[in-house]
Amino acid sequence: MNRIEVLDHGYIELVESWGSDERIIEAARMSTDKGFQDWEKDAKLLKYLYEHKHTTPFEMAGLTIEVKAPIFVFREWHRHRTQSYNEMSARYIPLPDENYLPSEERLLLTSDTNKQAQGIQTLNPDDISVYLDMIQETYEYCEKQYQYGLKIGIPKELARIIIPVGRYSKMRASANLLNWIKFLYLRMAPNAQWEIRQYANNLFNIMSELFPRTMELYKENSK
Amino acid sequence: MNRIEVLDHGYIELVESWGSDERIIEAARMSTDKGFQDWEKDAKLLKYLYEHKHTTPFEMAGLTIEVKAPIFVFREWHRHRTQSYNEMSARYIPLPDENYLPSEERLLLTSDTNKQAQGIQTLNPDDISVYLDMIQETYEYCEKQYQYGLKIGIPKELARIIIPVGRYSKMRASANLLNWIKFLYLRMAPNAQWEIRQYANNLFNIMSELFPRTMELYKENSK
Amino acid sequence: MNRIEVLDHGYIELVESWGSDERIIEAARMSTDKGFQDWEKDAKLLKYLYEHKHTTPFEMAGLTIEVKAPIFVFREWHRHRTQSYNEMSARYIPLPDENYLPSEERLLLTSDTNKQAQGIQTLNPDDISVYLDMIQETYEYCEKQYQYGLKIGIPKELARIIIPVGRYSKMRASANLLNWIKFLYLRMAPNAQWEIRQYANNLFNIMSELFPRTMELYKENSK
Amino acid sequence: MNRIEVLDHGYIELVESWGSDERIIEAARMSTDKGFQDWEKDAKLLKYLYEHKHTTPFEMAGLTIEVKAPIFVFREWHRHRTQSYNEMSARYIPLPDENYLPSEERLLLTSDTNKQAQGIQTLNPDDISVYLDMIQETYEYCEKQYQYGLKIGIPKELARIIIPVGRYSKMRASANLLNWIKFLYLRMAPNAQWEIRQYANNLFNIMSELFPRTMELYKENSK
Repeated sequence: MNRIEVLDHGYIELVESWGSDERIIEAARMSTDKGFQDWEKDAKLLKYLYEHKHTTPFEMAGLTIEVKAPIFVFREWHRHRTQSYNEMSARYIPLPDENYLPSEERLLLTSDTNKQAQGIQTLNPDDISVYLDMIQETYEYCEKQYQYGLKIGIPKELARIIIPVGRYSKMRASANLLNWIKFLYLRMAPNAQWEIRQYANNLFNIMSELFPRTMELYKENSK
Repeated sequence: MNRIEVLDHGYIELVESWGSDERIIEAARMSTDKGFQDWEKDAKLLKYLYEHKHTTPFEMAGLTIEVKAPIFVFREWHRHRTQSYNEMSARYIPLPDENYLPSEERLLLTSDTNKQAQGIQTLNPDDISVYLDMIQETYEYCEKQYQYGLKIGIPKELARIIIPVGRYSKMRASANLLNWIKFLYLRMAPNAQWEIRQYANNLFNIMSELFPRTMELYKENSK
Repeated sequence: MNRIEVLDHGYIELVESWGSDERIIEAARMSTDKGFQDWEKDAKLLKYLYEHKHTTPFEMAGLTIEVKAPIFVFREWHRHRTQSYNEMSARYIPLPDENYLPSEERLLLTSDTNKQAQGIQTLNPDDISVYLDMIQETYEYCEKQYQYGLKIGIPKELARIIIPVGRYSKMRASANLLNWIKFLYLRMAPNAQWEIRQYANNLFNIMSELFPRTMELYKENSK
Repeated sequence: MNRIEVLDHGYIELVESWGSDERIIEAARMSTDKGFQDWEKDAKLLKYLYEHKHTTPFEMAGLTIEVKAPIFVFREWHRHRTQSYNEMSARYIPLPDENYLPSEERLLLTSDTNKQAQGIQTLNPDDISVYLDMIQETYEYCEKQYQYGLKIGIPKELARIIIPVGRYSKMRASANLLNWIKFLYLRMAPNAQWEIRQYANNLFNIMSELFPRTMELYKENSK
């Protein structure tokens, strides 16, 4: 089991992968009808492919993962259209009562993030615990109302409308290596929201074990 | 201005379209190097293409729309991956305080919908107004807390985590005709959630004015 | 080595696959947060997914193959856009002198094929061996001229312009299961050209070993 | 009629376009719920979007073109998978006897092109006219054999196997602006084959008239 915890209730987990650094070379060598030779020679080719954006051979590998994350994270995740996914649905089951509560450290990190995403003024550290209590109460309030709706017979698909976007959901997602790399470029970037960055950073680690040479090139080129 | 009201605060509006029923014929006729002739002859060809799933010529037309809808509707909408879209972002502006409140009629319609989406028991009509008041109060409660977070300097991207999925958002979406037709098949179907069906039905009307012959074939074949 | 011979010089070969019939169930069950249980129960779910076109779980498996086929077959193959491929390139190496020569049986099969693809008159069996000799001579003539061009220093990318579309090329292709199934629907159909059908039939056999339950459903539903 | 001649028998022609530089701004502004204002302000935003690879708003415009080009050019063109196209088919009509004969100037340009695509030795200018005659004879030889096959009743789909890849074909192609821009990056590049570069250069001109501000940014950024 390779489940890696992310945020307060989330995780990311490798389901399976296919292809390898070697497979990428093999695919690239179709153009000249030569296969993989050895890394002494082929490391240079891999680097060339990567840096000159000969991207199609990187589609010959990929991975499927399982992710548990808040809805607002999935809203950003699903912006990436060249992936396959199947998500838990509040039309079919009541969503479990798990909600994202940021840590105090996270709240104090705000100076790191995207200017556009900033609040108008600087957060006063004294306000933080009050704020977190308030968030927790809001989640509890919404859950109570949600359960009430379900109890009186409101269909699940409607009862859900008051669920906050901080509620956790779950999915499996599958894409080829090239598309996961594009995901990382956007979601490991400093201007990505901190929460999705935690998933992206862990995904990067998973990918680095599976495709060490390609991900080394990603690392060098995304600085 | 072609803004069509949908639900309590939403709308759908044509931004622009391209192509036409004739263009579809012209594209199909590339295979034999003949162009569009006249509908007396070509109505038969259009029907043949449609019914035998020669789908590529239907990619030679399309439309861009603007949509305002609750977040839970957009969550279903974005499941369709072969479209282009740009949506309002709660990272960058505080989302306006508009939330979806179902009508009493809608709540009584539940027997229409997908079995899996049903509540456990039948809704008692006496509960409805109590329920709607409760939803309204929940929205107000969440908005108050949201504004409080923004006021004390919580960045917008975090303050939003308690916004319910019934909150309205807005987007522009663009796709070719084939992909909009696939959207309609899934979202006008009786097992689609009632809310997205209202958008799909109106989109169908817009498309029928632009591509009357193709949409007539859609209608005949989706019964 | 699973290389399966197709036509006179071609082949199809499994490079690797990922996912399984079980994985498809697991992905579908994300919506209700249950995993794979056992085939006694889940065979019904797989059938339901397949027949009601809940297609996304079938994207959670896939395969990569290597194919050697004439250029005119690749021209049809590449019409399928949701696949990844890397092909041999006549810009970078002189294409080997292997060309497709139809068998006598193939030539006599013409009554099977698409009406639109027919010749004007029925083929006289006496003409066949003369015709095949002529084809062979044409290939040899073109090859001689091709080699002459290369010899006097015409760049490969230009020297190739006289290579006939019956010349063999080679590629690796990778796609998810859903997209390979869509490929089979079009290319195993009776109106597909006989040559690409031979590849599709063999691909179907490969896929049936890897995903026996899904491909059984394909078989039942494509009759 | 906007037909622009390319190579000896080819052309490229605008069928229609949609969207505009303004539309791109409008789509980008969805995130903050502001529309297009004026170019004094918005030129800066367009530049920012382009240079920071906020690419999705550039999907809100597009164009459909008609192209006549040799088969080997279409083989490269169809490598771009996010476009829609319908091409003439030799399964359904005998391809007209038009074939690409490079000009003398083109043959002497070889030093410009991709090293990998080079011949082994330098072309002797005296060989050129002999070579061009030879190409012309090969085309005529193949056409004679092709017509013979058709005459004795070989189905069109088979008779075509001896047609050289220098034979002209025709298609309509449609894509959004972002995907056409990606096409130009690859096909206007100095290492693209000279023939497809002529099409790409002319497409760039067409696009520059339709989307002058965006294409100006393309030009600045592709140097």
